[in-house]
Amino acid sequence: MGDPATPPASELAAMTIVDGASLKHPFSDRVPVRSIVCRPDGGAGLAGNRIRAGGWVKTGREQGKGSFAFLEVNDGSCPANLQVIVDAGVEELSTLVQTGTCVSVEGVLKVPPEGAKQKIELRVERVLHVGPTDPAKYPIPKTKLSLEFLRDHVHLRPRTNTISAVARIRNALAFATHSFFQEHGFLYVHTPIITTSDCEGAGEMFQATTLISEAEKLDKELIENPPPTEADVEAARLTVTQRGEIVAQLKASKATRDDISASVAELKVAKENLSRLVERAKLKPGIPKKDGKIDYTQDFFARQAFLTVSGQLQVETYACAVTSVYTFGPTFRAEHSHTSRHLAEFWMVEPEIAFADLQDDMNCAEAYVKYMCGWLLDKCYDDMELMAKLYDKGCIDRLRMVSSTPFERISYTEAVRLLEEAVKGGKEFEKDVEWGIDLASEHERYLTEDIFKKPVIVYNYPKGIKAFYMRLNDDSKTVAAMDILVPKVGELIGGSQREERYEVIQRRIAEMGLPLEPYEWYLDLRRYGTVKHCGFGLGFERMVLFATGIDNIRDVIPFPRYPGRADL
Amino acid sequence: MGDPATPPASELAAMTIVDGASLKHPFSDRVPVRSIVCRPDGGAGLAGNRIRAGGWVKTGREQGKGSFAFLEVNDGSCPANLQVIVDAGVEELSTLVQTGTCVSVEGVLKVPPEGAKQKIELRVERVLHVGPTDPAKYPIPKTKLSLEFLRDHVHLRPRTNTISAVARIRNALAFATHSFFQEHGFLYVHTPIITTSDCEGAGEMFQATTLISEAEKLDKELIENPPPTEADVEAARLTVTQRGEIVAQLKASKATRDDISASVAELKVAKENLSRLVERAKLKPGIPKKDGKIDYTQDFFARQAFLTVSGQLQVETYACAVTSVYTFGPTFRAEHSHTSRHLAEFWMVEPEIAFADLQDDMNCAEAYVKYMCGWLLDKCYDDMELMAKLYDKGCIDRLRMVSSTPFERISYTEAVRLLEEAVKGGKEFEKDVEWGIDLASEHERYLTEDIFKKPVIVYNYPKGIKAFYMRLNDDSKTVAAMDILVPKVGELIGGSQREERYEVIQRRIAEMGLPLEPYEWYLDLRRYGTVKHCGFGLGFERMVLFATGIDNIRDVIPFPRYPGRADL
Repeated sequence: MGDPATPPASELAAMTIVDGASLKHPFSDRVPVRSIVCRPDGGAGLAGNRIRAGGWVKTGREQGKGSFAFLEVNDGSCPANLQVIVDAGVEELSTLVQTGTCVSVEGVLKVPPEGAKQKIELRVERVLHVGPTDPAKYPIPKTKLSLEFLRDHVHLRPRTNTISAVARIRNALAFATHSFFQEHGFLYVHTPIITTSDCEGAGEMFQATTLISEAEKLDKELIENPPPTEADVEAARLTVTQRGEIVAQLKASKATRDDISASVAELKVAKENLSRLVERAKLKPGIPKKDGKIDYTQDFFARQAFLTVSGQLQVETYACAVTSVYTFGPTFRAEHSHTSRHLAEFWMVEPEIAFADLQDDMNCAEAYVKYMCGWLLDKCYDDMELMAKLYDKGCIDRLRMVSSTPFERISYTEAVRLLEEAVKGGKEFEKDVEWGIDLASEHERYLTEDIFKKPVIVYNYPKGIKAFYMRLNDDSKTVAAMDILVPKVGELIGGSQREERYEVIQRRIAEMGLPLEPYEWYLDLRRYGTVKHCGFGLGFERMVLFATGIDNIRDVIPFPRYPGRADL
Repeated sequence: MGDPATPPASELAAMTIVDGASLKHPFSDRVPVRSIVCRPDGGAGLAGNRIRAGGWVKTGREQGKGSFAFLEVNDGSCPANLQVIVDAGVEELSTLVQTGTCVSVEGVLKVPPEGAKQKIELRVERVLHVGPTDPAKYPIPKTKLSLEFLRDHVHLRPRTNTISAVARIRNALAFATHSFFQEHGFLYVHTPIITTSDCEGAGEMFQATTLISEAEKLDKELIENPPPTEADVEAARLTVTQRGEIVAQLKASKATRDDISASVAELKVAKENLSRLVERAKLKPGIPKKDGKIDYTQDFFARQAFLTVSGQLQVETYACAVTSVYTFGPTFRAEHSHTSRHLAEFWMVEPEIAFADLQDDMNCAEAYVKYMCGWLLDKCYDDMELMAKLYDKGCIDRLRMVSSTPFERISYTEAVRLLEEAVKGGKEFEKDVEWGIDLASEHERYLTEDIFKKPVIVYNYPKGIKAFYMRLNDDSKTVAAMDILVPKVGELIGGSQREERYEVIQRRIAEMGLPLEPYEWYLDLRRYGTVKHCGFGLGFERMVLFATGIDNIRDVIPFPRYPGRADL
């Protein structure tokens, strides 16, 4: 264990102590590229330090008639590369310069000659490791490849500038999410992935089952070892009868005890064999059925189970006990959508607050979105600059605007009025606008991008287009729901105050044509110690799209799942 | 929208400004109980402040011949309750005093009379909300109920002292996890839940499918609207022939253009009808099959898909690009284990580090476990006191010991030698000890609890009992694997340095009898820019068991899933 070439830990640590702090990675002897080039002076102040660094070669070129090589090395700790210079005497240069090669090197940091782009470079004295890459076979040899092409290589695409920047931005947004809710006293609750409740009573769901694999196992077993025929069973039954008769005869003829026990033992064996055959004869290939329907009592959970579409209903049980909670986990939709906005597996953030109403809900949601935007400006500025350069010139300004501008708040009725006015003024929408419709993406984006040019919270939606659990307003026509619309993606957040009145929610479930029984536990929250509460859901990938300006949702999740595709 | 009784925000905010900071919840007008009673002075310094508080009554009693009531109110923000006093003139007391009632009240904080347990109490002037509870029907009316009983009421059990304390400890451990890895420069990566790779080549997996629901939909449709018979198809075919003949006749007889087009239109309708019938005649009830096997090309992802058992292989793709990463997400095992240590759905933390070996891996894992223990002592001391009182006297000392004691590190060979010595000394194990066995839980616990009395890291296991991806040591007999064993739960962490050598890992896959094809993407990480790397997995519920001293894993996850059970 341990690299024989590794000097003692103390010696290595001494190499990389700068201003009293260690530069090196806490759990390896390398110095992350970020610790060098992301210093305010670009790393110039580190000149003279001996360090180890490792990463993958972005570009490399031999210079001075092959006497040395320049390598741009990236380790994913930041978008910038470390410039590394290796002399021909130190290592075979032709391998090192190939894009994708992994190198781990030791050397001394130096200030490059006047006029260089870099503020610091590493002069290599020792190459510790080379992981070569054959440029003729490497699937992503070029530095500029389309995002669509990269989707066919999800296992290698994090080595590209774009996908690694997205990974850092996604990571920052995830930690910002936890930090925001923790700072405000919320508890993170793990709601279940496999569920026997259907949150919205709609939406295609994936089934989680062992029935098929069990059936396949049985089918295979029955082919290898066919079930007994009726004749087999009859023969076994006959044997039992005969053995029984023999026992009876022996007993009647007062045979020796030994003879009787021997024949009783044989009878027992025959009976066991018969019952085994009878059991096996019952085995039927395929998925178990009862009364013509699939027999889910045979499934792993003894009932039909699905992958969750939302943790909201379950997390409400915790809000109605510990007040302020949130979930952050994967959710699933088995919809055959082939759009750039839908995934079959995606992550959702769902806070839920007791003793709080729709106004509080909007305040929380607005504060959360602003916090994330501020966090990115603060912690991921270099990655955001890359996004601005490659994908969306306006993305940094958008973060600044959202983090500092109060969101507009208008009722649904007012939103419809504004859209109708726009139509009168000549604006054309594919879907007609009238009170009662579910706003389409084109309407939402028009409100936020054209009319207000900032995030808009639309609240108090018609009850007919919203879920049963949203609190009925006093007008009996609308519910206390709210959506947050933002430029670039439209709906980012959907939330509501929940119906806490037992009689009202019971009536609403019935009105929607839903059965009461599966919701008895949910009704219990209203039966016992009911409380005013509210919450919302944020589609996490939508937030990454909003931040980065990237167009396709498949490029902002590490392993996208959509119809026909689930690589790795 | 908005409670009509709510005074303006400014007035409420002014109520609760103490020492320049607002006591109130950031997104509601209540002051969390924690902000009052968890102050160093127990809240005494807040006397005189007018506040709003809300929560659920733990116990209540009428006093002074029904002239007032004492309520112990808990809002889940901490284990302690707020003592609330309500006069009979303010509200009907008999409802308020029932366990489980939700109350939201406004009043003035006062120092209770000398000799009281509390340092502060709330004298209520106004009751803003009561969510009553019928004690005759409330499923969890008593304060002491067995954990087993509570498992039948997962939607109400967070209202109990134990389950809410577990929720806070679990939350603290989750945020400690993120904080630890973020502080050390790791990126949080969301590995997929639905996967088409099987990490260990073993273990029962859940299938994620839409085949069954699609088949059920089709079956229902075919019953409502039976497919055409052969006679139906024949009749339709005959109509096409006849219509065709009519067209031919009209053309031959030089009929008018109008007549011809009319009959061509009729022919077209007949052809469309025929092709629709032919298509429908092909529909077969049940799950689609091809060559006797289930036709997975018809499934949502066009192939068989499962719920992940580990994100390790996938997260390696990110480590081999951005160096330091971790996952924290749900994982699944469809094993029919009915033990107190297994769940079908559980959460795992899996870091992965490039440019790091087994020694680095152990350092990281040890630092992580210590960090979590220190975090709990720092942030959840009151909850830990509750655990010590109710479940495990030694749990706080255990956290202290683990957070401050260096872990013992011994090779597997040494561990076996120690166990064999113990056997010679008279210790009896159910499973015999010899070099080559997979250590059983009894062996692991003996090492950590009896021999060393502290956490033990066992490393360099026989290759035969470990996975193909673990790095082969120079002895060709062992692999660079390590397990961390801790008192109370045994194995808490399992990790390894990964095999980075292309030829070696290819050979190991073959040796294990696994097919190469599904691992081609994994081999690519070794083909192109390969790098030394390592990682480990921590079973998150195991950590909660270790911390709390609770015995059954079903009590430390909000919604436990196990054979026959998936409530909500």
